[in-house]
Amino acid sequence: MNPTYAIGLDYGTNSARALLVNTANGREAAAMVWNYARGDSGVILARDPNLARQHPSDYINGAEKALRGVVALARKKVRGFRPEQVVGLGVDTTGSTPLPVDAQGRALALDRRFASDPAAMAWLWKDHTSSAEALEITALAGKIRPRYLAKCGGAYSSEWFWSKILRCRRRHPAVFKASHSWMELADYVPALLTGTEAPDKRAIGICAAGHKAMFNTEWGGYPDAEFLAQLDPALAELRSRLCPRVQTVDQPAGGLTVEWSKKTGLPAGIPVAAGAFDAHLGAVGCGITPGTLVKIIGTSTCDIAIVSNTQPLADVPGLCGIVNGSVLPGYFGLEAGQSAVGDIFNWFVNYIQPRGPRHGSHESLSAAAARLPPGESGLLALDWNNGNRTVLVDQRLTGLLLGQTLYTKPAEIYRALIEATAFGALTIINRFEQFGVEIKQVINCGGIAEKNPLVMQIYADVTGRAMKVSRSSQTCALGAAIAGAVVGGAHPHLGAAMRAMSGVKTKVFSPNARAHSVYQELFRLYSQMHDAFGTSSGSGHLQNVMKDLIRIRNRARKSA
Amino acid sequence: MNPTYAIGLDYGTNSARALLVNTANGREAAAMVWNYARGDSGVILARDPNLARQHPSDYINGAEKALRGVVALARKKVRGFRPEQVVGLGVDTTGSTPLPVDAQGRALALDRRFASDPAAMAWLWKDHTSSAEALEITALAGKIRPRYLAKCGGAYSSEWFWSKILRCRRRHPAVFKASHSWMELADYVPALLTGTEAPDKRAIGICAAGHKAMFNTEWGGYPDAEFLAQLDPALAELRSRLCPRVQTVDQPAGGLTVEWSKKTGLPAGIPVAAGAFDAHLGAVGCGITPGTLVKIIGTSTCDIAIVSNTQPLADVPGLCGIVNGSVLPGYFGLEAGQSAVGDIFNWFVNYIQPRGPRHGSHESLSAAAARLPPGESGLLALDWNNGNRTVLVDQRLTGLLLGQTLYTKPAEIYRALIEATAFGALTIINRFEQFGVEIKQVINCGGIAEKNPLVMQIYADVTGRAMKVSRSSQTCALGAAIAGAVVGGAHPHLGAAMRAMSGVKTKVFSPNARAHSVYQELFRLYSQMHDAFGTSSGSGHLQNVMKDLIRIRNRARKSA
Repeated sequence: MNPTYAIGLDYGTNSARALLVNTANGREAAAMVWNYARGDSGVILARDPNLARQHPSDYINGAEKALRGVVALARKKVRGFRPEQVVGLGVDTTGSTPLPVDAQGRALALDRRFASDPAAMAWLWKDHTSSAEALEITALAGKIRPRYLAKCGGAYSSEWFWSKILRCRRRHPAVFKASHSWMELADYVPALLTGTEAPDKRAIGICAAGHKAMFNTEWGGYPDAEFLAQLDPALAELRSRLCPRVQTVDQPAGGLTVEWSKKTGLPAGIPVAAGAFDAHLGAVGCGITPGTLVKIIGTSTCDIAIVSNTQPLADVPGLCGIVNGSVLPGYFGLEAGQSAVGDIFNWFVNYIQPRGPRHGSHESLSAAAARLPPGESGLLALDWNNGNRTVLVDQRLTGLLLGQTLYTKPAEIYRALIEATAFGALTIINRFEQFGVEIKQVINCGGIAEKNPLVMQIYADVTGRAMKVSRSSQTCALGAAIAGAVVGGAHPHLGAAMRAMSGVKTKVFSPNARAHSVYQELFRLYSQMHDAFGTSSGSGHLQNVMKDLIRIRNRARKSA
Repeated sequence: MNPTYAIGLDYGTNSARALLVNTANGREAAAMVWNYARGDSGVILARDPNLARQHPSDYINGAEKALRGVVALARKKVRGFRPEQVVGLGVDTTGSTPLPVDAQGRALALDRRFASDPAAMAWLWKDHTSSAEALEITALAGKIRPRYLAKCGGAYSSEWFWSKILRCRRRHPAVFKASHSWMELADYVPALLTGTEAPDKRAIGICAAGHKAMFNTEWGGYPDAEFLAQLDPALAELRSRLCPRVQTVDQPAGGLTVEWSKKTGLPAGIPVAAGAFDAHLGAVGCGITPGTLVKIIGTSTCDIAIVSNTQPLADVPGLCGIVNGSVLPGYFGLEAGQSAVGDIFNWFVNYIQPRGPRHGSHESLSAAAARLPPGESGLLALDWNNGNRTVLVDQRLTGLLLGQTLYTKPAEIYRALIEATAFGALTIINRFEQFGVEIKQVINCGGIAEKNPLVMQIYADVTGRAMKVSRSSQTCALGAAIAGAVVGGAHPHLGAAMRAMSGVKTKVFSPNARAHSVYQELFRLYSQMHDAFGTSSGSGHLQNVMKDLIRIRNRARKSA
């Protein structure tokens, strides 16, 4: 029998990637990456360090280049490959990355009038311009709709859908007015590929809506109009123009259009699965089961667990979201995460560039850091350079490094930054378990898990748990391809598809008992700092410090 | 009339320098620097980052090379110069930098048996190996001799004489046993040049003894034998072998020996003034008066003020010392300081070396930092990479940087480090004034005051006070030369010599009101962090954090 294939189309922060896999065993037949052309590696920046946008033309070009490229590559590389063997396609993206669209579902930034206006582009997941709006939404929900908050960790984030849209409405009224509706990138791409952008044809994935837009069937979908109207009457009107029809990733958004078939060389009409966030499809790519924590470690980290939706589940304070069906149908998907992990290491390497480009590379710093015993540097860092997503849900927190002497070396700082992210990871595991979500195994995936054994060993030593690593080096794209395989009929359901197509590497990182005991001490200090700077109940009462600095900074930037 | 000259012989952390000045106006006729040959720029380091020693051969060679060099240079450069025009010589050094000597007053490390033993070398001012001993001395004095502590800020430092000697006694008994006595570098050099090393001929400067060895005529000189015996009976025995005869810098230690005359080309017999610390002679070089704060800004900072000894003066908690005559006879010399200033900037440039050597130079970082408005980076740092000398008197504090994002740039950190030292400086000024020592003007000197206008402007903006800069680029050496001029008879007393020979530059750095108002806010945050991490009364109760890290670090190093 001829093999069949599925494609995962994966939208990262800096590139789009298409991965062609064999539906029988998940083996990767071909992959094609296209780096976004705009901005700084695809991210449009501004003087305000909180701003991070992407231009939708990069998304459209990315789909074309990556899909056409992977088909062409497979023709060359895979003996006997024919595009007709591709049975389906899944899509995963960053998020919450909402973009304004016109009445036909076309991205507003494609309109010449708005082509260079960052407010009309996609508001990238890590855009933190909307923190005032996030506070306002949190405050209002706390007052009149506490149940909205209970499902998203007790605080609505500046990274999320409604914060960004409210910000746009307030600060960029012309853009808001010209937009008919807003779509998450995870929904925009499947709609684009299947020609279902128009409001009457559109469906959306439960993953993005549930985790980022407070969508929940318990309360009839999106937050109610009365609630939204109290934020701004325009949001209540917008609600009626948002798509209410939700899908899980085992359902098709539609079939590939003839236009996209021509652009890519893929068969017209093959089903495209409903889109979901990279992390959630990464969990699928790792073969998630109840009791597994999947950590997708890249620029930021997402931590995903699932719990059967037939059992009662307490709301877990500080988690980004608890959404029925966001990973697999029949399970609550629980999402936690760290706002920056690889991005913190990248900051140190790219912005600080210690001792210049050669000595300050990730490879060189990792090698030197690996030689340092735990605790030896006397350093302690907080992993908050991009805020704290879980458990504090506070984007206005910032980085901290403590313990420097006159002899502190770059590799010591690099290691301290890795350790800080490991302490952040442990804080999340502890929070899951405190609220009854037992974590029996940890499976890691993403570039850092794949490439940096030092990070994995430190995570094992800090958490005292074995760290497994997904077999695929493109686990999110693999998860999208698994969804594609299911909608394409290659497997009856996601469970069967995961069993056939996912797996972990034989190399497992086991905790070193001596290192773990040092890290237990350091973690107590981390927790003390975490609570002092991040909570009002910590021993520190220093919760004001980082925020006061941001207030002073913003004023300085304004008056400069 | 032919001009007469005096020489200031200045021992820094990395070099020895001889400065030849005209006694009529302080004008510099010639200068010669000799970089120490041993260790890392003259500092002998070890695995323990607290250890910092110097080899006495560098001191002896330094005197010879710098003095002979300056005489030779003056012969070439100054028309009609004859060495006979040099009337006197003064000596300033780092401190507390004690070294063990044998029964003839010869440095123990010159003995072949001890030539490479760091314990037998000079224990450089910034050696912090003796923190446990410092705590022990502080605790004992607090219990049985509180008046000893009252004159040195309430805590005896690990940087000081007795802490280092007690450490040597405990950890290096062979060295301690082989030593007959201990001398401060400030006393060792004049004794060496004048052949008064032998115990019966020796005198010592009140500056080093008073500020670092708890010497005070109020209680009969050094701490009493009973007190010392409770620390260790060997210290009580040592007391009887320490020189009890003290001098101010307007008194001669002796005349230049024939041997040193031959080595240097200077006239035999010219008077050499009693030695003092660089900071105290720097204050003389700045023309200090009551109401003036002199800041000597180099690798670390000393802050010197004087108050007439005819008036009552409250003990000022946290000051390094209050010593009658340590700067000028007739005045209490008050010493405060920051354990690292230039050393923090040097750490960032030399150890972190952001973006490599070219972009990460002091010049390049200063230029970029100068373009940033106050508060714009959102960063806040503590200036404790080398501990805190004033007002916390705690060497076991470490550095802290807070507010980093994913876009924080090296120049922003560099500026935050400068600001941190400025906040530290303001903390000291405030402490002086809270205890009745009014500061009417601030005169800065030292390499950084001289070379980095950004630092001076930030100090003005942070403190809200004008920053004046000493006219001489070698103010400490000038101060030593002023002492040399007085012992050489060129002026009747230091007051007259200072009026004739010192002065400030015409360029004064005035505070910018807008910058000052931003810095007032940032200083409140600095103070909050200062108290949280540095005191038990701060809002933070985080006083344990830095120390726990050091404890963990030390254990990790031991077991590695």
